[in-house]
Amino acid sequence: MKARVHVMLKQGVLDPQGEAVRHALGSLGFEGVNGVRQGKVIELDLADGTSEAQIGEMCEKLLANTVIESYRIEVL
Amino acid sequence: MKARVHVMLKQGVLDPQGEAVRHALGSLGFEGVNGVRQGKVIELDLADGTSEAQIGEMCEKLLANTVIESYRIEVL
Repeated sequence: MKARVHVMLKQGVLDPQGEAVRHALGSLGFEGVNGVRQGKVIELDLADGTSEAQIGEMCEKLLANTVIESYRIEVL
Repeated sequence: MKARVHVMLKQGVLDPQGEAVRHALGSLGFEGVNGVRQGKVIELDLADGTSEAQIGEMCEKLLANTVIESYRIEVL
């Protein structure tokens, strides 16, 4: 089975990488870019029967830093 | 309007970051993790009326390295 985990910085946490992208898009002439946030997406190829709870545990222990990041699990 | 761009390494391109995550999950005792690929997700807050073609241009010019990465646009 496959699962996808989206990890984003929480609202209110400064995102310098996203800010750099926003600035670069402006420099390239793209107008109307009001904000950019950059996160990670992790595609997992797992043994069949892995529960969403187990994937959640992977997120809590390794994939996301839950102090500043939130995560979302999508089972494909 | 909001859009989300997913950028992943193309199939066949080595992903050392994903490989490191796979190895770390194994070390933490998670079994059955057969493969991990890591990519980026970029959330854009754009002026209303920005076309998908314009977002595609942003990807081609800045957000993705199309030699080794593929991208997918999702308008929210």
